[in-house]
Amino acid sequence: MTNSKLIYLDNNATTKVDEKVVEEMMPYFSKYYGNPSSMYELGGVNSKKIQESREIIKEFFGAKSAKEIFFTASGSESANMAIRGVLDVDKSKNHLITSKVEHPCVLNVHKQLEKEGYSVTYVGVNSDGEINKEELFNAVTDKTALVSCMYANNETGVIFPVEEIAQVVKSKNKNTKVFVDGVQAAGKIKLDVKNTEIDMMGISGHKFHAPKGIGALYVNSSTLISPLVIGGHQERGKRAGTENVPSIVGMALAAQMADDALAYEETTVKRLRDKLETNLLSKIYNARLNSSPYNRVPNTTNIGFEYVEGELILLNMNDVGICASSGSACTSGSLDPSHVLKAMGVPFTALHGSIRFSLSRYTTEEEIDYTISKMPAIIDKLAKISPFQKELQELKQRKGFI
Amino acid sequence: MTNSKLIYLDNNATTKVDEKVVEEMMPYFSKYYGNPSSMYELGGVNSKKIQESREIIKEFFGAKSAKEIFFTASGSESANMAIRGVLDVDKSKNHLITSKVEHPCVLNVHKQLEKEGYSVTYVGVNSDGEINKEELFNAVTDKTALVSCMYANNETGVIFPVEEIAQVVKSKNKNTKVFVDGVQAAGKIKLDVKNTEIDMMGISGHKFHAPKGIGALYVNSSTLISPLVIGGHQERGKRAGTENVPSIVGMALAAQMADDALAYEETTVKRLRDKLETNLLSKIYNARLNSSPYNRVPNTTNIGFEYVEGELILLNMNDVGICASSGSACTSGSLDPSHVLKAMGVPFTALHGSIRFSLSRYTTEEEIDYTISKMPAIIDKLAKISPFQKELQELKQRKGFI
Repeated sequence: MTNSKLIYLDNNATTKVDEKVVEEMMPYFSKYYGNPSSMYELGGVNSKKIQESREIIKEFFGAKSAKEIFFTASGSESANMAIRGVLDVDKSKNHLITSKVEHPCVLNVHKQLEKEGYSVTYVGVNSDGEINKEELFNAVTDKTALVSCMYANNETGVIFPVEEIAQVVKSKNKNTKVFVDGVQAAGKIKLDVKNTEIDMMGISGHKFHAPKGIGALYVNSSTLISPLVIGGHQERGKRAGTENVPSIVGMALAAQMADDALAYEETTVKRLRDKLETNLLSKIYNARLNSSPYNRVPNTTNIGFEYVEGELILLNMNDVGICASSGSACTSGSLDPSHVLKAMGVPFTALHGSIRFSLSRYTTEEEIDYTISKMPAIIDKLAKISPFQKELQELKQRKGFI
Repeated sequence: MTNSKLIYLDNNATTKVDEKVVEEMMPYFSKYYGNPSSMYELGGVNSKKIQESREIIKEFFGAKSAKEIFFTASGSESANMAIRGVLDVDKSKNHLITSKVEHPCVLNVHKQLEKEGYSVTYVGVNSDGEINKEELFNAVTDKTALVSCMYANNETGVIFPVEEIAQVVKSKNKNTKVFVDGVQAAGKIKLDVKNTEIDMMGISGHKFHAPKGIGALYVNSSTLISPLVIGGHQERGKRAGTENVPSIVGMALAAQMADDALAYEETTVKRLRDKLETNLLSKIYNARLNSSPYNRVPNTTNIGFEYVEGELILLNMNDVGICASSGSACTSGSLDPSHVLKAMGVPFTALHGSIRFSLSRYTTEEEIDYTISKMPAIIDKLAKISPFQKELQELKQRKGFI
């Protein structure tokens, strides 16, 4: 790996931990290492620091009270804890609603719940990746226990109107709970749960320059959940296990830094993303945008390169030091095309050759220019060995490249 | 907190992260930060490192194959995952066996399972804290799905004969699964699961100088479990969530270092623990050993100071820079006396004034001498304000201190 030239455009998979965050964590490994539950001051220091961090994460969510914040180990745990937790408390309703384009940590829990007797409505999206709101609203009945919907899609960056969804769902059945997977929104757009009817929202630290292995779940004060990990009294009895002090402290600083950088995200990061997108679409005849051009988090673009293979594109990008992905990291290793792009009806000609580029506030203009300079030759080379020469020629003509 | 004089004798609650471990973790925060599931080399580096770490943890458990090792976020998660996971797969049996002195992450799961319709036998211990094996073996029936038993008790350090337990349980019902909570044994005695009939064992990194927020679960290849956290394909589909690379790497090094230090643990740490114990018992007339003097992990002693209050002892110890605990960290905040000591039948006169001292390989002779020098005056001071003056006088005479 040539570290001298490493262009990291896969920030929706994971992010570099900010060096200030690492520095903030350091004292809590070998100096202030006490168990926060302990009587003595070495523990008390940590207990206090966790409380401060909880206040910061409360602000990050835009929640009313730090008591509504629970620390977890990941976005996946947050989602499992929210969904299972709320269903365990109230077993009177057996219907669930979610979307077809959720992250596996939501989708696969629903598939499991179907086996356990729940009926699930999987709501579709349009070709721009936007959720079919009517379909969702019409599905709500007096039997609907929970609606789970992501805030922003990990593959396309498309933002779902979760505030409106929560409001309409509640107007149809005030007892239906609403969980929002906020993992891909946190750090990219401002969260503001207190002014919504959202009951629960999960986030993951490593998507906004905190370390891997730490997440949080917001649960509003009127929602009761049972714990997923049962044991000690930590997290007010809702999540057992000695608190991960260094990572909690690190995530709190990362959250503050992300909120401070939101304006930069909405201007500079967005400008760089748009520059990359516009250039790839105009320079590469078989490129197509796999989502709405609007209504997205500022850092993500998903581009389909028709008649070429995604894995080959990624390998060739890796050779010139550019990191990106096809589908999500959590579904990689599988040869199935993205369930998100399939649900959007992306044509099969582009399905296998779709690449997600996701920037961060550390992405530079130089890196974007470099990527723009490298991609056309990579795609051209792969198009030449594609078995679909006739189709590619027709596409080239239709797009006015010949 | 006077860091110049901080004697940390609460290593069963949590440990200082070894500085070499922190150093080993560092590159994985901000340099090799790729998602291990990614195609490109930045991810591949991490994926390879996780595999190496899994091999090391396999050796630490004494397991046959790295495929039997699953990374989790804590000992509590490991226990929940094991117990829930194995019961979810086979619902044909409705009886469980565990001990009265388990950690809350095992006990409280069983209490929840009782609410869900399982019947649970809680096996007792004798006054030395040793498990009643006959009671356990007699409880096994053809309906027994699972036996859960700790390897070493967190409060007394008493080692349970888990190998024999597994063997006899299997001889009575070969379909009964055996889970061992190895959290307090790991790093103190050598684990060797492959030569036992134990099906599952959980450990927690922060008990052996790895960071908080990382644990592991051993599941032998003939045992099927369902995941607790459902989602992506990580950990072979058994535990979703982006892998916590720095902590996994850190735990692997900490495990190697702990295994390397086992001889030191069994000689020097044990000698220091015995020195502390012998001196406190001989110098303080109202001190009593709350466990077997034998058959314990080398680092732990639990001493009851009759007719004085544990919380007051701890506060006075904190004032002179000594950290220890009453009960376990996971049950602190509660005024109930230790469920472990109660199950042992420790008299109420000592129940509230019992202190656990737990050493580590970083504990020095000087620290033990300092503790021996400070404790008699602390206990003496508190005995003077105890409402049980008559009883204390009698005890003093009986023990030959007057």
